[in-house]
Amino acid sequence: MKCTRCRARAEVQLRSHNAAFCRPCFLFVFRRQIERAIESEKMLGRGERILVAVSGGKDSLALWDVLADLGHDTTGLYVGLGIGAYSELSHAKVVAFATRRGLPLRVITLDEEAGGLGVPVVAGLTRRPPCSACGTMKRHWFDAAAVEGGFDVLATGHNLDDEAARLLGNVLRWQTDHLARQRPVLETTHPRFVRKVKPLYLTSEYETAVYAFMRGLDYIVDECPNAAGATQLVHKDLLNRLEAASPGSKLAFVKDFQRTGRPAFAAAPRENPRDCEGCGMPAYGTLCAYCRLVGEVRRKAAPLAGAPA
Amino acid sequence: MKCTRCRARAEVQLRSHNAAFCRPCFLFVFRRQIERAIESEKMLGRGERILVAVSGGKDSLALWDVLADLGHDTTGLYVGLGIGAYSELSHAKVVAFATRRGLPLRVITLDEEAGGLGVPVVAGLTRRPPCSACGTMKRHWFDAAAVEGGFDVLATGHNLDDEAARLLGNVLRWQTDHLARQRPVLETTHPRFVRKVKPLYLTSEYETAVYAFMRGLDYIVDECPNAAGATQLVHKDLLNRLEAASPGSKLAFVKDFQRTGRPAFAAAPRENPRDCEGCGMPAYGTLCAYCRLVGEVRRKAAPLAGAPA
Repeated sequence: MKCTRCRARAEVQLRSHNAAFCRPCFLFVFRRQIERAIESEKMLGRGERILVAVSGGKDSLALWDVLADLGHDTTGLYVGLGIGAYSELSHAKVVAFATRRGLPLRVITLDEEAGGLGVPVVAGLTRRPPCSACGTMKRHWFDAAAVEGGFDVLATGHNLDDEAARLLGNVLRWQTDHLARQRPVLETTHPRFVRKVKPLYLTSEYETAVYAFMRGLDYIVDECPNAAGATQLVHKDLLNRLEAASPGSKLAFVKDFQRTGRPAFAAAPRENPRDCEGCGMPAYGTLCAYCRLVGEVRRKAAPLAGAPA
Repeated sequence: MKCTRCRARAEVQLRSHNAAFCRPCFLFVFRRQIERAIESEKMLGRGERILVAVSGGKDSLALWDVLADLGHDTTGLYVGLGIGAYSELSHAKVVAFATRRGLPLRVITLDEEAGGLGVPVVAGLTRRPPCSACGTMKRHWFDAAAVEGGFDVLATGHNLDDEAARLLGNVLRWQTDHLARQRPVLETTHPRFVRKVKPLYLTSEYETAVYAFMRGLDYIVDECPNAAGATQLVHKDLLNRLEAASPGSKLAFVKDFQRTGRPAFAAAPRENPRDCEGCGMPAYGTLCAYCRLVGEVRRKAAPLAGAPA
């Protein structure tokens, strides 16, 4: 098989793009694909300070790597979720990457900075699914770190597979309000919400895996142990089967949604968020989701510790 | 396991409904589900003459069986597609059912009444996928038979699995115009288009299979040999996997679409059809899709027969 761009021997075949590439051309095309997504969706302005949320997985490290190579002003943000060995290993991978590339990294450890409120503790005490508790915790600390550090934008490593699975989930229940808001760029609605962007939203997990391999990125390969059985994994599996039967389906699903699907859905009008009375971050009620969650944890933990609530 | 309705020993479990039923209660619930779909979507008026399209499969025979039991004025319509042994066997099953129940049946055989234009011939000469050619041929003869016989409405056996697979296909490419028109009732737009209804659109294939078994309906079990590899079967397989992981998903997907999804999509304005200059049936151009297809077949067949086109 020959490289679609330069006719050298191809090293990777991308059936979804009906193409094959040698190593230099794949790296070129991979970066260009992300650049184009950034440009066409106006994700990043010139000279903006970007906070890149990194988990230690291939997607977020590949994103950080590419953004730095493209000359953007990037700082990594690692939030330690307190999920045992998984968190320890992913932390080490992120630190190693930042050190190797000489890029600034901000680390927030929930067990320490959030008063011992790691994901297992929060999920256990509130009896929420771990992924739900984790989402609320992460969103809060991402936003807080972005504001505190004076960043213009927060970039996350959500890839095409993530976006397609989320889209399928929203479609299967026809959650029209979620559908109206599912975009690769979330504009700010409050002084303490920075813009959020997903530069990899058209880049498949397979492509980032190939990129990470070719670039020698050392990332954590295991899925988060809490993810087992999550509905999103069922949806990802279905989309992978579809992709195998009909290559390019996943990309068309997400691309055509942005072009012709989403415009059909009108978001229910929603007031801009107010200031949370607990932490000052944006909130749609008196307290933000994070402060409500932490309050619940404190009320449930107090009797266990023998202290008044 | 006990029957959800009467606490007798259950004979069938319906995970999608989180219920189990004994035989009499299943038959009651099955019919009631169809009656409710007919009523809530205003599919059938009192005293209307219904033409029921029957293929010899379990869905259409179950539909005819139930409509007749509910006291509707029904006539069966069997279109022989000329697909070898499959067509011969399905024809025999339909005739046997109509005879046993003493119900009137109209049979149209493409090889005879349509001048030898069975599906294999049409698909072969025009190089169309068989399912595409078959769809055009069937729609024409369904409409023609309904008009000719003075029927008020045409009922088809499309079930929940069919509707869900079609919906998924439309969603995966965000075909908003198709989404806007996907309804269990198609109102008439031309004097020669009768109303079309799908009373089984919320009834799963599994439920009709159980019904056919309990009622001793003798139907053709094989899939049409042309269907192998059809995209719709891929989509059905995906939805079955989803249903296994999360029972009730298929029903929610189709039901929520009708309630909250479809209203978001506006159908592109389209003029009502005119009269086809070939056959007088409704057409969106000079000729209807059927006459265009038949014209193509004639032009391609003529050189083979050595006759002028």
